[in-house]
Amino acid sequence: MTFPPDATLADAGEFGLISELVGLFPQGEHVLVGPGDDAAVLRVRTGHVVVSTDLMVQGRHFRRDWASAEDVGHRAAAQNLSDINAMGGRAHSLTVGIAAPPDLPAQWALEFAAGFAAECGLVGASVVGGDVTRADEVVIAVTVIGACLQAPVVRSGAEAGDLLAITGRQGWAAGGLAVLGRGFRSPRVLVEAYRRPEPPYDAGAIAAAAGATSMIDVSDGLLADAGHLADDSGVAIDVRRDAFEVPEPLVAVGAATGADPLSFILGGGDDHALLATFPDAASVPEGWHVIGDVLEGDAGVTVDGGAYDGPTGWTHF
Amino acid sequence: MTFPPDATLADAGEFGLISELVGLFPQGEHVLVGPGDDAAVLRVRTGHVVVSTDLMVQGRHFRRDWASAEDVGHRAAAQNLSDINAMGGRAHSLTVGIAAPPDLPAQWALEFAAGFAAECGLVGASVVGGDVTRADEVVIAVTVIGACLQAPVVRSGAEAGDLLAITGRQGWAAGGLAVLGRGFRSPRVLVEAYRRPEPPYDAGAIAAAAGATSMIDVSDGLLADAGHLADDSGVAIDVRRDAFEVPEPLVAVGAATGADPLSFILGGGDDHALLATFPDAASVPEGWHVIGDVLEGDAGVTVDGGAYDGPTGWTHF
Repeated sequence: MTFPPDATLADAGEFGLISELVGLFPQGEHVLVGPGDDAAVLRVRTGHVVVSTDLMVQGRHFRRDWASAEDVGHRAAAQNLSDINAMGGRAHSLTVGIAAPPDLPAQWALEFAAGFAAECGLVGASVVGGDVTRADEVVIAVTVIGACLQAPVVRSGAEAGDLLAITGRQGWAAGGLAVLGRGFRSPRVLVEAYRRPEPPYDAGAIAAAAGATSMIDVSDGLLADAGHLADDSGVAIDVRRDAFEVPEPLVAVGAATGADPLSFILGGGDDHALLATFPDAASVPEGWHVIGDVLEGDAGVTVDGGAYDGPTGWTHF
Repeated sequence: MTFPPDATLADAGEFGLISELVGLFPQGEHVLVGPGDDAAVLRVRTGHVVVSTDLMVQGRHFRRDWASAEDVGHRAAAQNLSDINAMGGRAHSLTVGIAAPPDLPAQWALEFAAGFAAECGLVGASVVGGDVTRADEVVIAVTVIGACLQAPVVRSGAEAGDLLAITGRQGWAAGGLAVLGRGFRSPRVLVEAYRRPEPPYDAGAIAAAAGATSMIDVSDGLLADAGHLADDSGVAIDVRRDAFEVPEPLVAVGAATGADPLSFILGGGDDHALLATFPDAASVPEGWHVIGDVLEGDAGVTVDGGAYDGPTGWTHF
């Protein structure tokens, strides 16, 4: 680290900061031109490119008092890598833009980048470019690029008769957020789940190969995202409450806050679990749990055959 | 348009806004999955992917009283398309993220998107995805993806003996910005050049095919960007003042403001001209003007053999 511990972005300067950041991003063999030119150049082996982009705003998508810079880096990368996972693809490259006030500690930006790079390393993806600029608040813009080895799994392919299944932790991050929102720090396992989600990165490609008919990553909330599958596929989806085993820490948070612990599972979105439909039980891969059915009828989601009256996700405005 | 003219982003809502925005983005034949899924899927014909990302912040990179929403859209797309041009590539796909306050007029976002889409249409590129979220100020994050038909032209290939050449308007946008900064609106041609740059989109691929040894788009300022070529290539670059014919509107602005009109050309960066080095005069394509020489010596830029004491670009912090 070449900056003193109390250096701000203004002290570090744009080019000084970029030079330090780039040093944190190891480049994979597919990267022909990495950070520092007008554009990065990547070698790709398939005829398809899968791309997605997301914004994170301080105070809205993360709070610097609730998560370390490294945690925020892990989470920013995870939510984007998860979008490629949800197409049945594998991410290979990302760009990251950071808009930040000049008095942001340079150390925060470097620790963010270290966390971001570490999360990308879990799937072997490289940070190949980015941008740094001044703004009044911290805004992080990530674009992820990947490849599919088979046809991508879109949201619109579910058919009546399919089974709805999920893989990955679900509701843990929402429980952690509820805990932090009340000023507590435990159960620690939930707080950690919020700070560093653990998306099931291998599961998307496996589900695609197994014949998943539609897929989405749970980011708006389980029922909200099931609703996206239902709307885009023009089908009804029914979720069964008794399909879920509520993990003990969520039971504890429910008891402490007076909330139905299942509401964290049905409404939460920050774990980046994968939700997919499969034509039959035989095609559901190991590690997935069937939680509902795809039915004929008006597009929409029900719980145990009826309307659900709990929180189902969040609005962005 | 389904929103009333005075609707804000909060009135329109995230999904309402996205649905309107997506309608403004025609999808090329290479787009297998467009906006609205977890990720877009593109068909690519070459084994290379060229990618770049940029942030624009209101009040810093654009002012809503100096340019219409449509102009800002054109400019945001242009500066990104230009990065692919500078590698000798052609852009085919872009993503755009918009962070904005809830009281931003929905109309502004839609006009921005229309301008953005129109600029992308100039090169046949599609807007394939994006994100919309709430923030205190407007931050626009663009990622552009393209392809190179031949080896990409990087910044580090210039060699002593090469010629430095430029194509595209240079200094016009900086002149326009100076005019706007003083509260004026003319010469109109300069103000328009600032609001809607006209990068020489075909020139990059032609220069690559002609054997350009290094290339960059002028975005930090002509001398600053020549400095990037010099630093990355480990060469000295000398720019000749008498190589430039100062256009009449810049002479007028210079006279009105007391500035050396050449300072707009040497220091300005918003036109997205292309700057490249070529091995000899015979390889310089039509439409390019030789403005200097690549020399042995310490990496750096001189003007007429000496240090330049005018403004050479801008700092981001």
